[in-house]
Amino acid sequence: MEKIDHIAIAVLNVRQAANWYAKNFDCKIKYKDKTYAVLEFDNIELAIVSPAEHPPHIAIVDENLDENQIGIMKHKDDSLGIYEHDGAGNFVEKIKYKK
Amino acid sequence: MEKIDHIAIAVLNVRQAANWYAKNFDCKIKYKDKTYAVLEFDNIELAIVSPAEHPPHIAIVDENLDENQIGIMKHKDDSLGIYEHDGAGNFVEKIKYKK
Repeated sequence: MEKIDHIAIAVLNVRQAANWYAKNFDCKIKYKDKTYAVLEFDNIELAIVSPAEHPPHIAIVDENLDENQIGIMKHKDDSLGIYEHDGAGNFVEKIKYKK
Repeated sequence: MEKIDHIAIAVLNVRQAANWYAKNFDCKIKYKDKTYAVLEFDNIELAIVSPAEHPPHIAIVDENLDENQIGIMKHKDDSLGIYEHDGAGNFVEKIKYKK
């Protein structure tokens, strides 16, 4: 079975929301800046994103991504990502981490 | 660290969206009806819900829930749930499964 790599929720104030989750749940802030934060939970990462940069989405690893594909993005950590739409209102990101 | 029990995305046609995920990813349909479906991934469950019944949310287990609490819901499987708002536009459900 496939793993969901992370889920991303969109908020207007990333730092404030990241702090809310860290205060209310037993999780760890792995990264936090003004437009993007990553919270580590036991089984998954929760990304908190600015809607100006990313839509809310769920992300699943896809080792077949190719950096020359149309629509591909390179993230800050050099991972590759591409959005698909589930046809029902939700974005799914396929993501490939750098080895 | 805490585990995220499930994430729920809202769609207009639950059966169609559940089939889309099952076709596109290696996951298992654990339950499916007209307003609610559960897909099992390796590390987490993805719930697909009708927005008329549930908001999109992420759910975290909370063993301290009490069925007499104001706002508590009882799910079909007898688990208890209550929504909180993260103050940034997203709902978080606290959930307690029946032992």
